[in-house]
Amino acid sequence: MHWARWGDPAAEAPLPEAARGLVELAFGPAEEHPTVPLAEVRLPEPGLGDERLAELRDLLGAAHVHSDHETRVRHTRGKSTTDLLRMRAGDGSDAPDVVVRPAGHDEVAALVAWCGEHRVALVPFGGGTSVVGGLAVLRDGYAGVVSLDLARLDRLVSVDPVSGTAVLEAGVLGPRAEELLGEHGLTLGHFPQSFEYASVGGFAATRSSGQASSGYGRFDALVVGLTVATPIGTLELGRAPSTAAGPDLRELVLGSEGAFGVITSVTVRVRPAPSTKVYDGWRFGSFAEGVEALRTLAQTGAAPTVLRLSDENETAINLARPDEVGGEGGGGCLMVTGYEGERGVVDLARATATVRLMEAGGTRLGERAGEAWAAGRFNGPYLRDAMLDVGVLVETLETATFWSNLRTVYAAVTAALTEALDGDSPLVLCHVSHVYETGASLYFTVAAKQRGDGIEQWTRAKAAASDAIVAAGATITHHHAVGRDHKPWLAQEIGPVGVEMLRAVKQRLDPRGVLNPGVLIP
Amino acid sequence: MHWARWGDPAAEAPLPEAARGLVELAFGPAEEHPTVPLAEVRLPEPGLGDERLAELRDLLGAAHVHSDHETRVRHTRGKSTTDLLRMRAGDGSDAPDVVVRPAGHDEVAALVAWCGEHRVALVPFGGGTSVVGGLAVLRDGYAGVVSLDLARLDRLVSVDPVSGTAVLEAGVLGPRAEELLGEHGLTLGHFPQSFEYASVGGFAATRSSGQASSGYGRFDALVVGLTVATPIGTLELGRAPSTAAGPDLRELVLGSEGAFGVITSVTVRVRPAPSTKVYDGWRFGSFAEGVEALRTLAQTGAAPTVLRLSDENETAINLARPDEVGGEGGGGCLMVTGYEGERGVVDLARATATVRLMEAGGTRLGERAGEAWAAGRFNGPYLRDAMLDVGVLVETLETATFWSNLRTVYAAVTAALTEALDGDSPLVLCHVSHVYETGASLYFTVAAKQRGDGIEQWTRAKAAASDAIVAAGATITHHHAVGRDHKPWLAQEIGPVGVEMLRAVKQRLDPRGVLNPGVLIP
Repeated sequence: MHWARWGDPAAEAPLPEAARGLVELAFGPAEEHPTVPLAEVRLPEPGLGDERLAELRDLLGAAHVHSDHETRVRHTRGKSTTDLLRMRAGDGSDAPDVVVRPAGHDEVAALVAWCGEHRVALVPFGGGTSVVGGLAVLRDGYAGVVSLDLARLDRLVSVDPVSGTAVLEAGVLGPRAEELLGEHGLTLGHFPQSFEYASVGGFAATRSSGQASSGYGRFDALVVGLTVATPIGTLELGRAPSTAAGPDLRELVLGSEGAFGVITSVTVRVRPAPSTKVYDGWRFGSFAEGVEALRTLAQTGAAPTVLRLSDENETAINLARPDEVGGEGGGGCLMVTGYEGERGVVDLARATATVRLMEAGGTRLGERAGEAWAAGRFNGPYLRDAMLDVGVLVETLETATFWSNLRTVYAAVTAALTEALDGDSPLVLCHVSHVYETGASLYFTVAAKQRGDGIEQWTRAKAAASDAIVAAGATITHHHAVGRDHKPWLAQEIGPVGVEMLRAVKQRLDPRGVLNPGVLIP
Repeated sequence: MHWARWGDPAAEAPLPEAARGLVELAFGPAEEHPTVPLAEVRLPEPGLGDERLAELRDLLGAAHVHSDHETRVRHTRGKSTTDLLRMRAGDGSDAPDVVVRPAGHDEVAALVAWCGEHRVALVPFGGGTSVVGGLAVLRDGYAGVVSLDLARLDRLVSVDPVSGTAVLEAGVLGPRAEELLGEHGLTLGHFPQSFEYASVGGFAATRSSGQASSGYGRFDALVVGLTVATPIGTLELGRAPSTAAGPDLRELVLGSEGAFGVITSVTVRVRPAPSTKVYDGWRFGSFAEGVEALRTLAQTGAAPTVLRLSDENETAINLARPDEVGGEGGGGCLMVTGYEGERGVVDLARATATVRLMEAGGTRLGERAGEAWAAGRFNGPYLRDAMLDVGVLVETLETATFWSNLRTVYAAVTAALTEALDGDSPLVLCHVSHVYETGASLYFTVAAKQRGDGIEQWTRAKAAASDAIVAAGATITHHHAVGRDHKPWLAQEIGPVGVEMLRAVKQRLDPRGVLNPGVLIP
């Protein structure tokens, strides 16, 4: 991962010339916004002295304790646009003092205990892909800050082919999980946009949801068991597919973002790797018409494995890609449907959905439109970097609500963003990518001319959107988690009693407050 | 509900003569075990004096505060076999001092606050159908005991037909919920054996699972929102079908058995009422073969709405019903499959499952065998009373585990029960009635010659079964909840860190410990 951009540095590219023209048309003349060299990133003075570092080396081995400039930079914050803007400007003020890579659960447990003992803040680091400030450490009041890189917890521990479950260590990244399970003819089926860099532990800690969630389920629905190192001991959960043995404590660990403990392994539901994958494109006359079609599929049990619908704006921008201008034409809204599984199952599911979508007024565009989406499914974030290079702010945010409220939330968030960025040529795009019987997600992409360092500008727009989401009765986040960025709105969403429930668990499990301080808990 | 038996007193009947012969063959000569008259049930001295009762009348209205003998008896404990045995013997020592029926959320909230203020134990009472000691109050250390009967919280508050959700007050009983939703062409689809008497709030508080859970989902999966009156304020949860806004606090309320607060309303997912219902009977050569067939259906997405499989013993007993002896013959294991929905959907699902079941070695018995099950689906508990009348102890217990562990758990629990009741002519029957991709439930019915009052005898057998369940790695309960009876094993299941999580929430929400004291929290 690039230290100040998304993804593989080899895939870094400037905005294509053709696109540059379009961007200038929309946002005015390009302004070069270069990134400082890595060596010039300003880091805080480490709080931990030599004695503590020596203790860490004793605990984990000297080879796994790093306090060099580059490693610290690479473990600073996540990949939200404001994270990138700060890093590009050389602001490394949230860097940890030291990065450690323990070997397994027992070493993680020992580290957690050590941090509690010395009041050292501990930030679990999986893939570093948070876009909500989940890695932005609170430094005040702590003796120092340790980044716990889970990279060495990288094993497929076991597979139970009869039950359809597998145990993965928390540091396994998305592609590696698929590779390891693929050797057994299995798949996890979890493909969020961050897939290539995010970790299994991070998926669980943030309640991640993948692009194929309609078929395989959200990550929280894939989890059947968890092992967690907490300051008061190890927690092991998940004795059955389902239980009435009291409150489901797994659901308290899922989404806990490292604040209750460090997830060290996850037992997940796995499926046979699909032999067939087919993606279709569909066009609907309007977003409202497309949403009704999604609802029909979700409520009649006919939702495909992948199901997404772009609004008019996002559809127009997609079709305006340099290599596709003039290729499709026609306006309306693009829907992508994907079917994965055995040939016969895929054929039946596709036939069923096709009938429903035609009845709902859809026009079939064929496989090319679907495959174009599938080919580029993980590439969105690269384009953001290229836009930031020329002074165009790009960021995303998302929510979910019930079907009857979807149009209201869509209009409210679009209006809030447009108004907050008034004068900055704002462009607001939206798609639905996760559907349920009772409702769906809304995922917004926003672009605007960058003003100043862009941070105050985006913080204001984000707050306006978040206020609109809460006021409209939707959730502050469907799959990005809370981190520091959503914390004020989480308090509104769960109310004062809900906040007390979180605080009570936090204080009991982490009495010294060393676990990822500053995130999640209002 | 009969005060010392299950169900409608009008449906009370002695064991049919033909069955009596079979029972004597299995358990020896019948011994008459009559029930004391209601008036002779011994109740404890009420702890609450006139002043407190006057306060309750002021709070809720005199017409809704009852401390007469019969009302107290009718709110004493639940319907486990040991509950029935105690009641039949006139032991009402767990009776509340007073039974109150508040009118809605605000009155419940006021009552909860009043109980906290005066350190009065509060037992929420929905349908009174607990079989795990969920209503067995802890009296020591409290000024008195109030039973909060939710009968007046009986409204369908709202329906959202677009989202497919409805808000039901907590006191609505199963049949009334179906009736109210039926007026909108909808169903909840939740049919546990206790359906006729259990309440919506109780379903949520205990993580109930219905006989059609394969199709409609467990009750916890049907819940999208909850309103809860806690001593520190009202908790409202459920802003979206799914969210990444931190831990899912709904899952902490589900299964909380009144220990964290009183659930006053539940927002549930609803479905169109099915126009077609078809039930088939199938025979498999062995329980193991039938279990493999269940697993295939569950893991290929082909599970019908209802799916259950009896083991050899249970199958033999079912076929030995007086009106069916000689009717079917043949041994093996009986499976029932039920399909509910629109005609076309039912036909397709049935055709798919039929192919899979035939491939798995099943023999189709036709609709009569399936319909016989459907017709008697809520009647099991009546037979238990008739058996208790003649000195035969009958009780059930249940668990769930992963597919790969199912045979081990089945054998271990059967052996534990058989051994613990050695000498009492034990008969152990089992069925699977809830299936998941990764595993299934096991539901055991036990009959034995009653020894003495039967309580010590069953307590010992139940402990042996519970030890076996935990030792085999399964959950202590799949759908009966924890109550007082499963508490020691819950502690083993979730471990010391899990126990601390529950205690932390309990102490924060209910600092004076007045909510259903003695249940759930180890």
